Amino acid sequence: MMLQKREVEGSGFRYPIELHEDLSGLREKLESLKKVSRFFIITNREIAGIYEKYLIQEIQSLSVPYTIIYAKPGEKNKHIDRLKKVFHEMVKSDADRKAVIVAFGGGVIGDFAGFVAASYQRGIRFVQVPTTLLACVDSSVGGKVAVNLDLGKNMIGAFHQPEFVFAPMFTLSTLPEKEWSCGLAEIVKHAFLDGGEFLNRLTHVKRSDFSAGSEVLRYCIDESVRIKSNVVGQDEKEGGLRAILNLGHTTGHAIESLTQYKKYSHGEAVSIGLITALLLSRKILGFSDSNLSKAVQIMKSLSLPVRLKEKPADVLTHMEHDKKKEGKTLNFVLLEDFGKPKFGVPVERDLILEVLKFQKGWEELG
Amino acid sequence: MMLQKREVEGSGFRYPIELHEDLSGLREKLESLKKVSRFFIITNREIAGIYEKYLIQEIQSLSVPYTIIYAKPGEKNKHIDRLKKVFHEMVKSDADRKAVIVAFGGGVIGDFAGFVAASYQRGIRFVQVPTTLLACVDSSVGGKVAVNLDLGKNMIGAFHQPEFVFAPMFTLSTLPEKEWSCGLAEIVKHAFLDGGEFLNRLTHVKRSDFSAGSEVLRYCIDESVRIKSNVVGQDEKEGGLRAILNLGHTTGHAIESLTQYKKYSHGEAVSIGLITALLLSRKILGFSDSNLSKAVQIMKSLSLPVRLKEKPADVLTHMEHDKKKEGKTLNFVLLEDFGKPKFGVPVERDLILEVLKFQKGWEELG
Repeated sequence: MMLQKREVEGSGFRYPIELHEDLSGLREKLESLKKVSRFFIITNREIAGIYEKYLIQEIQSLSVPYTIIYAKPGEKNKHIDRLKKVFHEMVKSDADRKAVIVAFGGGVIGDFAGFVAASYQRGIRFVQVPTTLLACVDSSVGGKVAVNLDLGKNMIGAFHQPEFVFAPMFTLSTLPEKEWSCGLAEIVKHAFLDGGEFLNRLTHVKRSDFSAGSEVLRYCIDESVRIKSNVVGQDEKEGGLRAILNLGHTTGHAIESLTQYKKYSHGEAVSIGLITALLLSRKILGFSDSNLSKAVQIMKSLSLPVRLKEKPADVLTHMEHDKKKEGKTLNFVLLEDFGKPKFGVPVERDLILEVLKFQKGWEELG
Repeated sequence: MMLQKREVEGSGFRYPIELHEDLSGLREKLESLKKVSRFFIITNREIAGIYEKYLIQEIQSLSVPYTIIYAKPGEKNKHIDRLKKVFHEMVKSDADRKAVIVAFGGGVIGDFAGFVAASYQRGIRFVQVPTTLLACVDSSVGGKVAVNLDLGKNMIGAFHQPEFVFAPMFTLSTLPEKEWSCGLAEIVKHAFLDGGEFLNRLTHVKRSDFSAGSEVLRYCIDESVRIKSNVVGQDEKEGGLRAILNLGHTTGHAIESLTQYKKYSHGEAVSIGLITALLLSRKILGFSDSNLSKAVQIMKSLSLPVRLKEKPADVLTHMEHDKKKEGKTLNFVLLEDFGKPKFGVPVERDLILEVLKFQKGWEELG
């Protein structure tokens, strides 16, 4: 059953993002695509282990043939070295320009399968079936697809929009806690960027309100998709505005890299980074104390990490390395107020260091 | 000195294709690009061995830093396996989204470097400096970029338009005969597709009229660019019309593959394929005998190969394999008349075989 629907519309693309109870209805959506020669479902054995029977149930009666391709799970396998094997499987199954890829999984699968679709025979159509909260509210929306190099994450990629996004809520029932945090952090980020009624509503929810079927969850997914779609529709290829979606990510990426992607999920690191961004916003753009307290309260009631535990100097080093800007000023996305983001704000390293130290010791963070 | 200029214009892109005497002026063109962090010149040692000193002379006084990256020469190195090394070199030189790639070479370099540009950090700008006739009249125009898989040529790629094309004519003075044929075949193809005054003019030229500085050459490059630009402007991503540019290529690819890319250059194989297409056009679309004779005369006076030397049955097998269509009808681009192409024309295998046999024995081909 379809629960909600949003359209993403930009220059040269328009597609629906649908929230469904489960996988029923996916077959009809796939059948609605014109002139498909074959579906290639890209997933991994972990996800397939839980959901493949439901997926097969849905697609076995398709009038178009399909092939399931298993990618290796995990961020480290969203790697340029993993592409060739998948391309070869596609060629061997006679994939032509009318083939359609179905990305069935979380953000790693979506990014990887999306880049396969973007580059196979110069680009074929694809569909996102996100199975994590992060993928529902963030990575499946907006067409950013990529793989990693040894020397950097998401270094090789494309902007390639899906034909539609079909998010089956029931897959969230098996989501680990870390993955909930991951998605919730991006939801909070969207609320900070938006600053409207959505943010107010978040002040009244707590972590336990979120479960696979809850009304609060649906509402938050819908609002996140609305906010992200609106930004992407205006600036698909990140010429400017789209950069605001990186709120919290400069510190987040540095923390992830410093802790070798082991201690925190992406969202947890972004969560800490959001606080850094707001503290910098207070120093530079006059973001108010009361707003800052409100943000901290929201994040704490969602059990999101807010305190910095790493050494400030180490975090700064990784920021500078990440941005290839040793010794120069770094640019941040900051907020004048909730709903008033500014991107490309230069910040001196001394101030970054001062704020990181404060975030490590600040009592309000509990 | 700039000799000629054409604009390619389509939905969302517009750029000039300039024909220059030599490399002087390239520096100014590069300087005209806004906010460039670094130029990455991708070339190979064969080309660099001849032209690097002229290139360096031109770019050493650029106000922006540059790095030269050497790719391995030859079609077999336009390969997915060769990408990572180039990407790593770029990361190590701090390439960001404001980096610009300069593809300095023939079609292989243009395709390879173009795909690097299309996918590095989800797409950065690039510039084409074609050094072969084929690249001038065909591959540098229109944004088709790609690398090969072991299982197929140009299987992985993108549509990524350059910022400009800067074709230095003096590089053609060292072009081997086979490479002249390669470019001339595509020029003839464009003339057949166009059918106007350009075609008539070709009936009065011979191979020896073509040399690096000749007026005939300039005219033919300009006309080819005009015709190709016009098609690409209407249908960048080959949704339909752009397919007409594959005239002669179904047979051409089959001959290349059958002879393992050793006996014929791409253009030579296409040249033979053009005759196959015209013979099929005569059978199916009433293409006239007099037109056919005219085509043969033009191609013979340009010393282009026209006779089929391979076994017809083998050619057919490779066509079917190439198109993954064993036992089914194959689609061709054919001509009702010069200037009146039709794409997607289904042809029965028996008729293909009959025409290939005729092309092998036909006396008029000399």
